[in-house]
Amino acid sequence: MTQAIDATTHHHTHATFDKLKCKECGTEYELQAKHVCEMCFGPVEVTYDYDALRQRVSRETIEAGPNSIWRYRPFLPVQTDNPIDVGTGMTPLVNARRLARQLGLKKLYIKNDAVNMPTLSFKDRVVSVALTRARELGFSTVSCASTGNLANSTAAIAAHAGLDCCVFIPADLEAGKVLGTLIYNPTVMAVKGNYDQVNRLCSEVANTHGWGFVNINLRPYYSEGSKTLGFEVAEQLGWQLPDHIVAPLASGSLFTKIHKGFQEFIKVGLVDDKSVRFSGAQAEGCSPIASAFREGRDFITPVKPNTIAKSIAIGNPADGVYALDVARKTNGNIESVNDAEIIDGIKLLAETEGIFTETAGGTTIAVLKKLVEAGKIDPDETTVAYITGNGLKTQEAVQGYIGEPLTIEPKLDAFERALERSHTLGRLEWQQVLV
Amino acid sequence: MTQAIDATTHHHTHATFDKLKCKECGTEYELQAKHVCEMCFGPVEVTYDYDALRQRVSRETIEAGPNSIWRYRPFLPVQTDNPIDVGTGMTPLVNARRLARQLGLKKLYIKNDAVNMPTLSFKDRVVSVALTRARELGFSTVSCASTGNLANSTAAIAAHAGLDCCVFIPADLEAGKVLGTLIYNPTVMAVKGNYDQVNRLCSEVANTHGWGFVNINLRPYYSEGSKTLGFEVAEQLGWQLPDHIVAPLASGSLFTKIHKGFQEFIKVGLVDDKSVRFSGAQAEGCSPIASAFREGRDFITPVKPNTIAKSIAIGNPADGVYALDVARKTNGNIESVNDAEIIDGIKLLAETEGIFTETAGGTTIAVLKKLVEAGKIDPDETTVAYITGNGLKTQEAVQGYIGEPLTIEPKLDAFERALERSHTLGRLEWQQVLV
Ligand SMILES: [Zn+2]
Ligand SMILES: [Zn+2]
Repeated sequence: MTQAIDATTHHHTHATFDKLKCKECGTEYELQAKHVCEMCFGPVEVTYDYDALRQRVSRETIEAGPNSIWRYRPFLPVQTDNPIDVGTGMTPLVNARRLARQLGLKKLYIKNDAVNMPTLSFKDRVVSVALTRARELGFSTVSCASTGNLANSTAAIAAHAGLDCCVFIPADLEAGKVLGTLIYNPTVMAVKGNYDQVNRLCSEVANTHGWGFVNINLRPYYSEGSKTLGFEVAEQLGWQLPDHIVAPLASGSLFTKIHKGFQEFIKVGLVDDKSVRFSGAQAEGCSPIASAFREGRDFITPVKPNTIAKSIAIGNPADGVYALDVARKTNGNIESVNDAEIIDGIKLLAETEGIFTETAGGTTIAVLKKLVEAGKIDPDETTVAYITGNGLKTQEAVQGYIGEPLTIEPKLDAFERALERSHTLGRLEWQQVLV
Repeated sequence: MTQAIDATTHHHTHATFDKLKCKECGTEYELQAKHVCEMCFGPVEVTYDYDALRQRVSRETIEAGPNSIWRYRPFLPVQTDNPIDVGTGMTPLVNARRLARQLGLKKLYIKNDAVNMPTLSFKDRVVSVALTRARELGFSTVSCASTGNLANSTAAIAAHAGLDCCVFIPADLEAGKVLGTLIYNPTVMAVKGNYDQVNRLCSEVANTHGWGFVNINLRPYYSEGSKTLGFEVAEQLGWQLPDHIVAPLASGSLFTKIHKGFQEFIKVGLVDDKSVRFSGAQAEGCSPIASAFREGRDFITPVKPNTIAKSIAIGNPADGVYALDVARKTNGNIESVNDAEIIDGIKLLAETEGIFTETAGGTTIAVLKKLVEAGKIDPDETTVAYITGNGLKTQEAVQGYIGEPLTIEPKLDAFERALERSHTLGRLEWQQVLV
């Protein structure tokens, strides 16, 4: 179970990140496992030397890199030349012609992290970065507070890297997410409570045990992994930015980091400067950021989650105010949809584009639809919707809301009768064709 | 639901495939929807102009292509420059250091199609090719006989392409595979019988309806898609072939097409000539090819399947004799393992490499282990094991065979007690670390 660990916290001469800095008061810290400012309790963030980055990085150097998030390594807070690379990232940017036509948009893309590697959600990005950094900082046990996808990802990538792993989840998670964690044989703590209670418990554990919690004491490194969702879209659009993006809001971190990714590419000259509108999606049953947006507040009032979209059901979102700020300053929106709309969103994406997403993705598609219908996305805007997880993990959510097989005997006449029945039901658009 | 369809069956000047040819008697046919020779009932196969290919294709032209199977388009039987591309292929070739160490191998790679796009199995390769070709041949309704993965893939890619779709599955399939098909809203016929009965029914339907059955009348085109599993491994190994490959055997087609892919790359000079050993994996409960291999027969005796590895449970494998031939002439082996070994194989791969595969992949890993232990794979051979599908689709198979979460109240002392219990159980290898 052991693996060579580079325990140094000093940076090599080629490191492009240089310190931790409080987002609120600006106090600076060494590059350690720390997520809260000692002065003001604000979140701390990694800072980079953008002059060095501009010198070192070009479109060509990136294109010559690996086919994974690690092609953007100079923009990520790790020192090693040998990161944990299991093929994470570089997921397809699908030109969604059929969905666009249905919604009345001219150019719509789906960034499809439902097929991210290895565990089919965007969390593989942040965990790949966090565990690579955890190894550099000398941790041999890694942990997380999770709504499911993060547990899958931490357990899988820890297994690959040979790190010990203990994950914390709410006890009422979807079966697929529990099994999809246990299979890697970590220790799993199922906490009787919601995500916010799980998170509070983990903060205490992080203070008393020497573990690397990817989304607590390693959070400044971890969260930088989400920038790759911005980088990849820019590169996949031919080194330019879209006009409008729609992404789900849980803690708000994903949303703000996509924004940071775009800004960094502008800053170092990889793409032309351009304003991109940022719109966020929440489930009505857990929409503290959408409520604040609607009511013009600049603070978040925590809520108790009650929605099928469990992977984004964070009632007290750590980066909520920063997400609000991004949506407002980019002239975007934050909208919420109910559980029935979420299921319709999942089905709409599957039927038009052949992409099966989980409830978070259904939320994004339903909000996309709502924003288009309300005139808040212009048909001429090149729009990117971020799909962040796979539908096979939340099968319960759609059971009972989709069609059923026609059960038949293995005989031609049984088939013909069933086909006729299905035509009557209008399920198959029959067309005579010449072969 | 309509999309521009190129109905021509004539080939463009740049087409590199030129006819259909019977594998048994050599009779040639036009490039139509036909899979059986009229003279001898042998299977027909697509032929290529390898001189033209050698002229047109180089490592550089391939590397400059899309990040999907379509980078190998000149080796695939389609004419269009605009194939159905949903990011299928170019899945990771994982350097499986921890699994290699556990098994006693020096260099082991996992070709991980458990994260293939869009539906998480190698079937996305063959379906992308078959549906692109179906469109060229003028079909507007596509169909398949499936053990599950093929149904997922056909339904999803047909949805993306706007083709009507009707799939046939055995009525007792795993829930995840049925739901993972229905979500795309095709017509689903659940046939009361095993796969071989489903397949026979579909042959009758293909004769009476003008549908494009991807694995029946379109089979010569469809099956070529599996060559990309050979092409990608060669490219990902730095344009060289491995020493030994292990792949699952269902119909036997995948296995023989990986071999054909390697041979084609040698033929056009993309890799150096080299003999690669081909070993096949079957589940004991459906092992007609392994039995023939063991008993030295050159014919297959059909069996009635009875195994948890449903996706490879084909009792009367269409390409069984060709698979036998490949294993024998390359000095490989064909081995089978029982259901308990299959589950252990799934767990072993998850715990060492963080890859969650379905029962077919468990079969491959268990056979890999068995072959190494029997001295039939040399520790010095560079070995590639093909993982063809995702474990989230066959969750039933491992339920009851994996650990359970430790359920706790959201309190630090409850966590500490649970952790102590888990140490006693030996589930977490505790290590003191300095942070
Ligand atoms: Zn501060
Ligand atoms: Zn013939």
